[in-house]
Amino acid sequence: MNKLFCKNLTIKNDELFFAGVNVNNLAKEYGTPLYLMDENLIREKVNIYKKAINDGFDGNGKMLYASKAFSCKYIYEIMKDENVGIDVVSKGEIWTAKCAGFDMANVYYHSNNKTDDDIKFAIEEKVGYFVIDNEEELVSLNTIAEEKNIIQKILIRITPGIDCHTLEAISTGKVDSKFGFGIETGLAFDIVEKALKCKNIELKGFHCHVGSQVFDSTAFIKSADVMIKFISDIKDKYNAEILDLGGGYGVKYVGTEPEIDIYKNIIEVSEHIKKIVRTYGIKMPYIIFEPGRSIVADSGLSLYTVGSVKCIPEFVNYISIDGGMGDNIRPALYNAKYTIIPTERLNRNFDKLYNVVGRYCESGDVLGNNISLPSDMKRGDYLACLTTGAYQYAMASNYNRVERPLVIGIKGDKIFTILERESLSDITKLDR
Amino acid sequence: MNKLFCKNLTIKNDELFFAGVNVNNLAKEYGTPLYLMDENLIREKVNIYKKAINDGFDGNGKMLYASKAFSCKYIYEIMKDENVGIDVVSKGEIWTAKCAGFDMANVYYHSNNKTDDDIKFAIEEKVGYFVIDNEEELVSLNTIAEEKNIIQKILIRITPGIDCHTLEAISTGKVDSKFGFGIETGLAFDIVEKALKCKNIELKGFHCHVGSQVFDSTAFIKSADVMIKFISDIKDKYNAEILDLGGGYGVKYVGTEPEIDIYKNIIEVSEHIKKIVRTYGIKMPYIIFEPGRSIVADSGLSLYTVGSVKCIPEFVNYISIDGGMGDNIRPALYNAKYTIIPTERLNRNFDKLYNVVGRYCESGDVLGNNISLPSDMKRGDYLACLTTGAYQYAMASNYNRVERPLVIGIKGDKIFTILERESLSDITKLDR
Repeated sequence: MNKLFCKNLTIKNDELFFAGVNVNNLAKEYGTPLYLMDENLIREKVNIYKKAINDGFDGNGKMLYASKAFSCKYIYEIMKDENVGIDVVSKGEIWTAKCAGFDMANVYYHSNNKTDDDIKFAIEEKVGYFVIDNEEELVSLNTIAEEKNIIQKILIRITPGIDCHTLEAISTGKVDSKFGFGIETGLAFDIVEKALKCKNIELKGFHCHVGSQVFDSTAFIKSADVMIKFISDIKDKYNAEILDLGGGYGVKYVGTEPEIDIYKNIIEVSEHIKKIVRTYGIKMPYIIFEPGRSIVADSGLSLYTVGSVKCIPEFVNYISIDGGMGDNIRPALYNAKYTIIPTERLNRNFDKLYNVVGRYCESGDVLGNNISLPSDMKRGDYLACLTTGAYQYAMASNYNRVERPLVIGIKGDKIFTILERESLSDITKLDR
Repeated sequence: MNKLFCKNLTIKNDELFFAGVNVNNLAKEYGTPLYLMDENLIREKVNIYKKAINDGFDGNGKMLYASKAFSCKYIYEIMKDENVGIDVVSKGEIWTAKCAGFDMANVYYHSNNKTDDDIKFAIEEKVGYFVIDNEEELVSLNTIAEEKNIIQKILIRITPGIDCHTLEAISTGKVDSKFGFGIETGLAFDIVEKALKCKNIELKGFHCHVGSQVFDSTAFIKSADVMIKFISDIKDKYNAEILDLGGGYGVKYVGTEPEIDIYKNIIEVSEHIKKIVRTYGIKMPYIIFEPGRSIVADSGLSLYTVGSVKCIPEFVNYISIDGGMGDNIRPALYNAKYTIIPTERLNRNFDKLYNVVGRYCESGDVLGNNISLPSDMKRGDYLACLTTGAYQYAMASNYNRVERPLVIGIKGDKIFTILERESLSDITKLDR
């Protein structure tokens, strides 16, 4: 157990430390389930993107944090402080960013289904950019912008038709996608023409997104090829200022997965883009990347308490914990794998296999199968699940009417609450 | 479209009525996403179970409503009024039942992971029965009951080893289950001996559960066979008073699924049980059933507004709605199918196939693929998704920071709020 692949994990006296803090002490003090976020690591990741984009595109680009991975006031405060933009997908995310005092000019509003009410809200909050996903949205936005007497800046979401070789369920760049407009079908050209005719809309460029858990630059490069050819093909009608390449760089959840050098990858993408932009003889667009998971995933760790150890002879050993699919739906939803380790006795051999199961009343509530742990695990021990900063809390439910966990932040020697533990009275707050 | 298989759906002037109420008017008045619950149908289903159990077991049995399908104050108020018990799986469900003034003596507390804190809470609230899932829980419960100076009644959860032929993910009666104690392995016998030695615990009988979406009585009958043989095998040591057969009867989500006659099925099970009880020469135990889904699923309906209709030539047509995996995770989680219909123009031919997709920023957010609908669907139209009373709202999240929907009840000509629509300030309520 010396090879802990998250750089902010260390072991002292056989106990686990996260961001320099003894996690056993945190579990005892704050109770479990408990989510930890390492602020320094979040900022470090943001700065890798900032530097890579700045170096690669000669200052002519930026990153937006993709909120949906982990949306809360705290994360927007960090992004504001780091002077990066954000991508949001709902009124609720805009509202949360507003509560954090985030500059709305640097907010990009995605979503394949914006209601008139959503559009009004976002315009009133002076959201910088709408990312247009369908024609109905364009029409509604133009009408509402006219009523409000503003010119609204937009990007248009294009589906470049690249299969990023990740899971079907999270691959969003293919032609038959619910998102955006395809090029081959002619729909992308049509919508540009329509947008250019809208009096209260200013088209600033294009957005695309290749998928999730992408581990090299091939998909980004192919996607950029398609997008830049598209920009070139329409340049007599319209000169795109912005090309937003979306997000998708992956993170390592278990030891067998690759690790990715974000800086090197973005530099590769930038070199390719600069080359093809020269080939097509078009003006270099302003480039945007939208990382979410790769900013927050391994900045997060979750702690659980073992409730029972059930050994069924010749079948399987179960460890049940006090969390599960309510705070982390990803194993049940995507068959996602995690690294799960004890928080103490880390000198032991991990010589027994367990299925680590959740507390929710459902057979499918499993955090991980065949997890190697010490043979003497018992009620009251803590388990740490690594790389839980993205798409865990964000997707948390009150299934079984279980309260959502406490999320605390660590920054050097400061420990602070990010999201309070839900209370029983919170649980019945919507009950009439 | 004349064959609407939910009996509380009707069509008048080509518009959809649910529980006698025009759903278009409700969608206009209350906004969408909107969940409706038909109280009369809930009560009707409860009464089918009550009558079947009463008739089948000669007054020697009862039903518990399995809260996890849809837990809220309202549903406990109905169960209290109907004088049936409830099964709960968390402090939050106990708390909610308490808020509804539910009689705690008629509460059965399941869960494979009860912490000491959970156990203390449940004892303080005077929960009638604990359903013991593991040895650690038994030990902790006995200790805490001793501290509180009470004798706590329990059932023990047994895994009878029956595969109910439904989805692996929701089949919970097999031997290698995270729940309960297997008989073949000897663990069930051991735990009975241990429970009988606990001074502050009174063993009242056994619980088992065969799975979900069970469409005939075979699994219940086989499960009862195993359980009654077990009760007979240990009768020299212990006479079981209660046999809780759990829940699992299915509901019809789409036209191709079977429909089940609950009354007939329970009578079948009762006849079989009475016969084998005589064969073994044991005293007839008090029989419990725990329906959840079959009580509330088709008492529920959800309404959405269409945001866009995107036709990708030669590929697929997408309809995006203003809800999705945040309020209904079941299609993404279990590949669950639903019947989705328009709420007006019901005289039209449903001559076009659409993928009905959600508003959440994820390709996998699909409510249903290849749904037949009229060819002229457009932004602003409403869609109704049927049979959404169980495991939708109960599993709802704030993914993408989207507010959870309003749930309203209909009882004859009364329309009332069950769960308020979440507000933006609710969304940031836990943010520090």
